[in-house]
Amino acid sequence: MGAAMLTGVITEILIPVAAVIGIAFALLQWMLVSAVKLSPERQTPAGGNKKNGFAADFLIEEEEGLNDHNVVVKCAEIQNAISEGATSFLFTEYQYVGVFMAVFAVLIFLFLGSVEGFSTKSQPCTYNKDKYCKPALANAVFSTVSFLLGAITSVVSGFLGMKIATYANARTTLEARKGVGKAFITAFRSGAVMGFLLAANGLLVLYIAINLFKLYYGDDWEGLFEAITGYGLGGSSMALFGRVGGGIYTKAADVGADLVGKVERNIPEDDPRNPAVIADNVGDNVGDIAGMGSDLFGSYAESSCAALVVASISSFGINHDFTAMCYPLLISSMGIIVCLITTLFATDFFEIKAVKDIEPALKRQLIISTALMTVGIGIVSWIALPSSFTIFNFGEQKKVKNWELFFCVAIGLWAGLVIGFVTEYFTSNAYSPVQDVANSCRTGAATNVIFGLALGYKSVIIPIFAIAVSIFVSFSLAAMYGIAVAALGMLSTIATGLAIDAYGPISDNAGGIAEMAGMSHRIRERTDALDAAGNTTAAIGKGFAIGSAALVSLALFGAFVSRAAISTVDVLTPKVFIGLIVGAMLPYWFSAMTMKSVGRAALEMVEEVRRQFNSIPGLMEGTAKPDYATCVKISTDASIKEMIPPGALVMLTPLIVGTFFGVETLSGVLAGALVSGVQIAISASNTGGAWDNAKKYIEAGASEHARALGPKGSDAHKAAVIGDTIGDPLKDTSGPSLNILIKLMAVESLVFAPFFAAHGGLLFKIL
Amino acid sequence: MGAAMLTGVITEILIPVAAVIGIAFALLQWMLVSAVKLSPERQTPAGGNKKNGFAADFLIEEEEGLNDHNVVVKCAEIQNAISEGATSFLFTEYQYVGVFMAVFAVLIFLFLGSVEGFSTKSQPCTYNKDKYCKPALANAVFSTVSFLLGAITSVVSGFLGMKIATYANARTTLEARKGVGKAFITAFRSGAVMGFLLAANGLLVLYIAINLFKLYYGDDWEGLFEAITGYGLGGSSMALFGRVGGGIYTKAADVGADLVGKVERNIPEDDPRNPAVIADNVGDNVGDIAGMGSDLFGSYAESSCAALVVASISSFGINHDFTAMCYPLLISSMGIIVCLITTLFATDFFEIKAVKDIEPALKRQLIISTALMTVGIGIVSWIALPSSFTIFNFGEQKKVKNWELFFCVAIGLWAGLVIGFVTEYFTSNAYSPVQDVANSCRTGAATNVIFGLALGYKSVIIPIFAIAVSIFVSFSLAAMYGIAVAALGMLSTIATGLAIDAYGPISDNAGGIAEMAGMSHRIRERTDALDAAGNTTAAIGKGFAIGSAALVSLALFGAFVSRAAISTVDVLTPKVFIGLIVGAMLPYWFSAMTMKSVGRAALEMVEEVRRQFNSIPGLMEGTAKPDYATCVKISTDASIKEMIPPGALVMLTPLIVGTFFGVETLSGVLAGALVSGVQIAISASNTGGAWDNAKKYIEAGASEHARALGPKGSDAHKAAVIGDTIGDPLKDTSGPSLNILIKLMAVESLVFAPFFAAHGGLLFKIL
Repeated sequence: MGAAMLTGVITEILIPVAAVIGIAFALLQWMLVSAVKLSPERQTPAGGNKKNGFAADFLIEEEEGLNDHNVVVKCAEIQNAISEGATSFLFTEYQYVGVFMAVFAVLIFLFLGSVEGFSTKSQPCTYNKDKYCKPALANAVFSTVSFLLGAITSVVSGFLGMKIATYANARTTLEARKGVGKAFITAFRSGAVMGFLLAANGLLVLYIAINLFKLYYGDDWEGLFEAITGYGLGGSSMALFGRVGGGIYTKAADVGADLVGKVERNIPEDDPRNPAVIADNVGDNVGDIAGMGSDLFGSYAESSCAALVVASISSFGINHDFTAMCYPLLISSMGIIVCLITTLFATDFFEIKAVKDIEPALKRQLIISTALMTVGIGIVSWIALPSSFTIFNFGEQKKVKNWELFFCVAIGLWAGLVIGFVTEYFTSNAYSPVQDVANSCRTGAATNVIFGLALGYKSVIIPIFAIAVSIFVSFSLAAMYGIAVAALGMLSTIATGLAIDAYGPISDNAGGIAEMAGMSHRIRERTDALDAAGNTTAAIGKGFAIGSAALVSLALFGAFVSRAAISTVDVLTPKVFIGLIVGAMLPYWFSAMTMKSVGRAALEMVEEVRRQFNSIPGLMEGTAKPDYATCVKISTDASIKEMIPPGALVMLTPLIVGTFFGVETLSGVLAGALVSGVQIAISASNTGGAWDNAKKYIEAGASEHARALGPKGSDAHKAAVIGDTIGDPLKDTSGPSLNILIKLMAVESLVFAPFFAAHGGLLFKIL
Repeated sequence: MGAAMLTGVITEILIPVAAVIGIAFALLQWMLVSAVKLSPERQTPAGGNKKNGFAADFLIEEEEGLNDHNVVVKCAEIQNAISEGATSFLFTEYQYVGVFMAVFAVLIFLFLGSVEGFSTKSQPCTYNKDKYCKPALANAVFSTVSFLLGAITSVVSGFLGMKIATYANARTTLEARKGVGKAFITAFRSGAVMGFLLAANGLLVLYIAINLFKLYYGDDWEGLFEAITGYGLGGSSMALFGRVGGGIYTKAADVGADLVGKVERNIPEDDPRNPAVIADNVGDNVGDIAGMGSDLFGSYAESSCAALVVASISSFGINHDFTAMCYPLLISSMGIIVCLITTLFATDFFEIKAVKDIEPALKRQLIISTALMTVGIGIVSWIALPSSFTIFNFGEQKKVKNWELFFCVAIGLWAGLVIGFVTEYFTSNAYSPVQDVANSCRTGAATNVIFGLALGYKSVIIPIFAIAVSIFVSFSLAAMYGIAVAALGMLSTIATGLAIDAYGPISDNAGGIAEMAGMSHRIRERTDALDAAGNTTAAIGKGFAIGSAALVSLALFGAFVSRAAISTVDVLTPKVFIGLIVGAMLPYWFSAMTMKSVGRAALEMVEEVRRQFNSIPGLMEGTAKPDYATCVKISTDASIKEMIPPGALVMLTPLIVGTFFGVETLSGVLAGALVSGVQIAISASNTGGAWDNAKKYIEAGASEHARALGPKGSDAHKAAVIGDTIGDPLKDTSGPSLNILIKLMAVESLVFAPFFAAHGGLLFKIL
């Protein structure tokens, strides 16, 4: 059991240092972006480009309209409108969610406090009956506190992401006047601000919480880390509302704007005459940025918590090996450093000279970060872990070596890369799957939809095998701890993942602003090229989110089972099997709600947009201004109202099942929801991504085949637009929300496990 | 353990008598249908109506064109073309499938024979080690024989169904001249012919096989019923090819015909100018009739086999209580008698006077058969079972009372009714869900698709709860035997279920023939009314098929686990979990294949239909005849070619997983495929049914709301047609094929279980 090389003190220093470096790097990126001025002075070459060192080379592209001060003023105005809309929506959302949080915090306290009847006496520990642990009441208090901490961190992460995105969108548009390379760097740097802030903040808050809780818990690691799981629950439940509310917002606006604007009125996307155009652009920020940010933060917090809680009852905790227990945090710290280096490859070491360089640059980010991180994991595993130790495995201790744990983390990391590439293959219009879907538009929307659905179904195969292999290997090597660190491995490059992911909606917004500000066609083409690459990276980001959600849920599920003191989850017992089949149904129920919410909200939006076109004279001619605010309000109200039923379904299911049917049935529900939800989530987001890019493929007309299908307005293009519209709620609302469904139910079950184990299964007890 | 009232001898007599009564009743119905003459003589009131005793009342509806001899000749011609097309397709299909059957029969023999190295010595029994059972080689031989028997019975059932359907379609058209009531009775009687033939044949062949096998096996019930499971495998593997091949055939033709005819050329459905019209009508018969028939026969055979194999190792088998062992067959016998009485309610006791009576009449069939059968089950349980007995439950014997078994069968039966009514609610345009979908067509095809998908997802909820409750109750009362008889309960009214199910495609064909023969608009309206009711009953039939498939699969899965000697299927072992998640993925993989097959075949069909319209002068004007045969050939070739990959996926998965990964992983795969597949199957067929009826709702224009959306050709109607086309492969190809995927993998695993248990899991053994 050779001890680790890293001492506790160094660990205590290294983690916050990495977090602070991450935050500093984010601030630096933000400064570079802010060098692009949004005021109508003559633009000097921005600081960001000077830093780059290649500024001169960039200028080979023709500069456009740099001296048109009107445009800058307009951009600033539009940006302001988007930023205000997004801020106001998020504040409204947070008010409602705040009430929910308060109620749920009370629930956590009551449920967990009641486990030992609110007694303040120490109790025998759950796993080590010879030892005394802090009372259940302490667990209730600290779980509630960490729940609130997680929720607040999630809110802050989402909010900051939205802020930087709405700060960067108009700046990207302005930079696009100078060339695609400059615009790319502005968008990418802004994405990086969000990625690093989120990764570093998540780590820092978690680290501080652990250290503060330690003041009370001392070396009662089991109690400490049980309480810390509330952090994951808080993060994830905020993410639920962020994803669902944001997803409904963005798609109601998008679908509503497209149905009237593109289909009925035949005006281009993002045309300023469309009353829903601001709402649409706000939506990108609240859905794709704030929603995605809190989703991935949730995954990150949960996988850390799952790993920590298992570590506390393994030899790490038993031997009070603080460094080894902090292994998950050290992996994340290393991730921040690795991503920092990786980012430099995009912003400083290479240069984007033409449109065709964009996708490879983004892909290179994934490959570089994965390759470097593999080395990083090796280093952390070598210095932070004893050469051999034991891991808790459903009541037994399993012997594990440090290099085995290295493999667990690495396989998660690489499985993420595989999922990313498969997603790219199925959603980028550079490959045959999307081209086939585009081709099927020749015979109309129906065949487009049939082919698109088939593509989504097919795209599930390899990711599921990748997940299955990671699970098998990591589970075999290090039981549930292996799965948790595999999830952490997949998320270790989260800063880079979020950077390339946030880059998409920023570019999308930049294009919208260019259109609305009446900038030239060439600038719009540049932002479109950025956006097309962004569609694919968005799909890749969703792939990561889903893959990591699957692993995280399984790890949490395992921790739940351990904590609920069930020895097996046997499918062939009626209690478990009915849970399994009902659990597998939940993603459908949830999707039915979210899809219909989008449909309903979009119909409302359509009515409003039609009303404005019909009742505001001069709107179509561009002489009158539409009433943007009403559309923003419709999206806001609809999403707030519609996020409650699906939210309630997810939050209440574990409570109801656990209380009335008990932990066995709840185990079945978790397993069923996991294995069924992950498939729908992957297929929904890839189908949607493919339809979007099939449409873009026809519009861009970059090949003989594409030109035969186009141009814009052809029958095939119309069929493609229908597919794209159907895909919107699939890829941006119901699909990605399912990640949260499966994670959140698992983490909630884990937090409430002591209550369910003590008082659950009322119905069966009565019968 | 009070003995049963029914002696073995009486049981031996009752079962074949019930089967023979069923066959005789089917022949009687067939005679009544054949009284409608398909030759241009003056029609005398047909025998069927005389029998009815209400003939005079029927004539209040106006008779139309009874003396137009030309029409009769034309109908006969068209019928002939459809019948020939269907026969030729089925023969082609059977050739390919025949080869597969032969190869698979050899495989079964080799795999099972190799379990004991082809030794001819008796071996200790699997469950009762003190006793000697017949050698594994005998099991191999008899399993192969019963596999072939099941396959042949399935083929014969499907073929006879197709024959009677193509015999009845034109006769229904001709009767429609006399009124909707007469047409209804002709279509319904023809459906009944199929229903009774299938139920009675299935029972009779199984009964004979058991009695013949008994000559060799004597009182080695375990060996006997293990070998009999091959019957289920044979039935189901034929059903796979029937469903998939037939499903691809029918939808390639349907989608192809609609896309060019309705959408591009703006000619009505079933217009004789459309070159794909005969292929489309052939498709109804090979897909919806032959495919559905072999599917339900497979479920029936499998649930009987699952129950018998468990009975043989329970106290029934141990005490050599032949009557109690035959309980499943007695339930089926009672079912035939109950359905016979139920049929009289539709054909003789009540009368259809107007269009609005049709749906209630069909619904009444479901309710009457369920109510009567509940009594029937009570009687059988009372006279055939000892008052108390034990049932094998994963290594233990569980004490069960006869009334408990009654509840198991009855809950399955009533769960079927619940599923049927929920399906009706979600797919009939008399209720708000379909009307909402129709309403969403106002904003185009995209919202129609979004609402339709959401409807399908939502329609899963109650059926899953119904299935979960049945599973929980029957499992708790009588372990796996309870589940098997619950499935049998759901299928006990199969004759009625199939009658109302087959009635749909027959009416659909009748409408097609009326259109093609150029009959008056009023006659087409009558057949359309029959057809609309048929859409709903088809969805209900699919609901039953899926519900029973879920129960059957679980029963087979339980039998597999028992036979493979696994004690628990613990989700929290890596071997099982990876099986679970990969199993949950298989329905997606399978659906991707079948959806794409339909899409691809439809594209081919579209090209051909377009080619004919463009190259045959006078076709659009109706002066030249299209080349129907080429379209029939395209559908035939496409379906034969395209059914192989999905067929291979289903048939090979259990073999590969069992051989290389072993029985634990295979258990996971079965459970995963079951809980995930049942959801997709339900949602796909309900979404498709809802789209179809939303379109019909707009076309019929029976309410203010519907008229506001219509008429035919309006934008909303066009959007509805797109939804209908997308729904075609969902509801008729990929959705219903999933039933077979989950059942077939389970029964195949069961048959090969001895091999997997002895030699499986190679990969893990090597590692």
